[in-house]
Amino acid sequence: MGSDMFQQQLTDAATRIEARLMAALAECADQPVTHAMRYAVSGGKRLRGFLVIEGAALYGIAPEQSVHAAAAIEALHAYSLVHDDLPCMDDDDLRRGQPTVHVKWDDGTAVLVGDALQTLAFDLLARPEAHPDAGVRIDLVASLARASGIEGMVLGQARDIAAETAGRVLTLDEITELQANKTGALIRWSAEAGARLGQADIAPLSAYATALGLAFQIADDILDVEGDAEKTGKRVQKDAEAGKATFVSLLGLDGAKARARALVQEAEAALSPFGAQADALRQAARFVIARET
Amino acid sequence: MGSDMFQQQLTDAATRIEARLMAALAECADQPVTHAMRYAVSGGKRLRGFLVIEGAALYGIAPEQSVHAAAAIEALHAYSLVHDDLPCMDDDDLRRGQPTVHVKWDDGTAVLVGDALQTLAFDLLARPEAHPDAGVRIDLVASLARASGIEGMVLGQARDIAAETAGRVLTLDEITELQANKTGALIRWSAEAGARLGQADIAPLSAYATALGLAFQIADDILDVEGDAEKTGKRVQKDAEAGKATFVSLLGLDGAKARARALVQEAEAALSPFGAQADALRQAARFVIARET
Repeated sequence: MGSDMFQQQLTDAATRIEARLMAALAECADQPVTHAMRYAVSGGKRLRGFLVIEGAALYGIAPEQSVHAAAAIEALHAYSLVHDDLPCMDDDDLRRGQPTVHVKWDDGTAVLVGDALQTLAFDLLARPEAHPDAGVRIDLVASLARASGIEGMVLGQARDIAAETAGRVLTLDEITELQANKTGALIRWSAEAGARLGQADIAPLSAYATALGLAFQIADDILDVEGDAEKTGKRVQKDAEAGKATFVSLLGLDGAKARARALVQEAEAALSPFGAQADALRQAARFVIARET
Repeated sequence: MGSDMFQQQLTDAATRIEARLMAALAECADQPVTHAMRYAVSGGKRLRGFLVIEGAALYGIAPEQSVHAAAAIEALHAYSLVHDDLPCMDDDDLRRGQPTVHVKWDDGTAVLVGDALQTLAFDLLARPEAHPDAGVRIDLVASLARASGIEGMVLGQARDIAAETAGRVLTLDEITELQANKTGALIRWSAEAGARLGQADIAPLSAYATALGLAFQIADDILDVEGDAEKTGKRVQKDAEAGKATFVSLLGLDGAKARARALVQEAEAALSPFGAQADALRQAARFVIARET
């Protein structure tokens, strides 16, 4: 599969996921908070949703079916961004090239928007259209709760804040573990969701996702150094300014790039049982370290 | 059933629910955010959890079983309080007689604590111990998502903020609808959960819960006027200071009290199919308008 075809697939998935999210929000009351929710879930690469849809395809599940779980993870990811951007958290005023929710509306609206987007994620997974089997739906809910809560994403965020507050520079092992929770857990859930929808063993996709999640974060750290605020749509060189340990500060720029490439090979190797069927996921792994945003 | 026996049942339920929440949090990493989560879920009347446990008892479900759903609604309620108390929301520094989470820790920690408590609520409902049947668990998750999200609690909060921002004083109909979402939806979910756990028709408990939820909010407004900050453990006379419409400002103090009493009678009447078995829920309805906190 060529890179152009992959880009087309990524765009198609993004369009489908956005339509699902907008349909869910169209049912809601006409309030500023609803408008702000629509704004918060607009745009973005939809990489996590793409992983859900392509992972599910390996088990013969059509995108019309997997789009609900894909929309759920994008709602959850959007909640985490809206709250992360708050002045009392990372204090960012630019996201996907647009003013962040608390800048365009206000802090209180941003808190509510994040809260309601988290709820929407579980709502979308719990609805019968997500999967006809209640056992599969509850498996998706339970695993997403673990991935995103105090044993997953929030734990990573908490450790990040704790290190910053203490003014302590993390070691490579510590930052690897922190990122495995902070960004890795949702990426892992996304790639594993297809196997859950297919009621299959999650192990092969899990190995792919673990390598992919870490490669993704290393690429983020590289982008923070080499990236262009205009292309990334967010503030860059934040970590260096804050004196934070990153994969780049710990491994050097070349070392970080080499590690990311090795992880992508590892991710691709984990897909070997699926043959050519998994080409889109292979391309996704390469995309993760080649992206400019 | 006497009022003393009711108080004992309420205390027993609170103890059981707190133990469940602490057990869930004991599994989590030793981080400030975990400590703050424990703090946020400590104390309180546990009225919502009590409604779950007593509603479930009507369908022959033991408290050992219903405590998981009871703990879930208390985690969700605690999340809403932590976020509501933030400076960018209601800006309260006192809750249950103690400093609020953002005062004792900081705003960022309070955002994360609320986020993780919401996730914990869905996590607790999704675990097999909440109910052996996955269909019942997903029904609990789906209904809680509807009750707490942009079609329920958050919608009520959003309407409250919108009215305040516009400096508009709401009518009685508007405030009744607002409160049916803002506080009513979680109380309704709590009282209906027993029927969901029992795989029974939710209608009888739903009628009880709707009347109870409104009585609860009217009583809150009365407490805001007549209450004592020391007893309530929170700031009082906030609404009058803010010039906000309340049931008291719209109906007068005597009118509000009469309306609350009528709603309690309505709630009690809805329980007639259950006979003496529902005495604890009848007492709960009387307690709601007689409480001092």
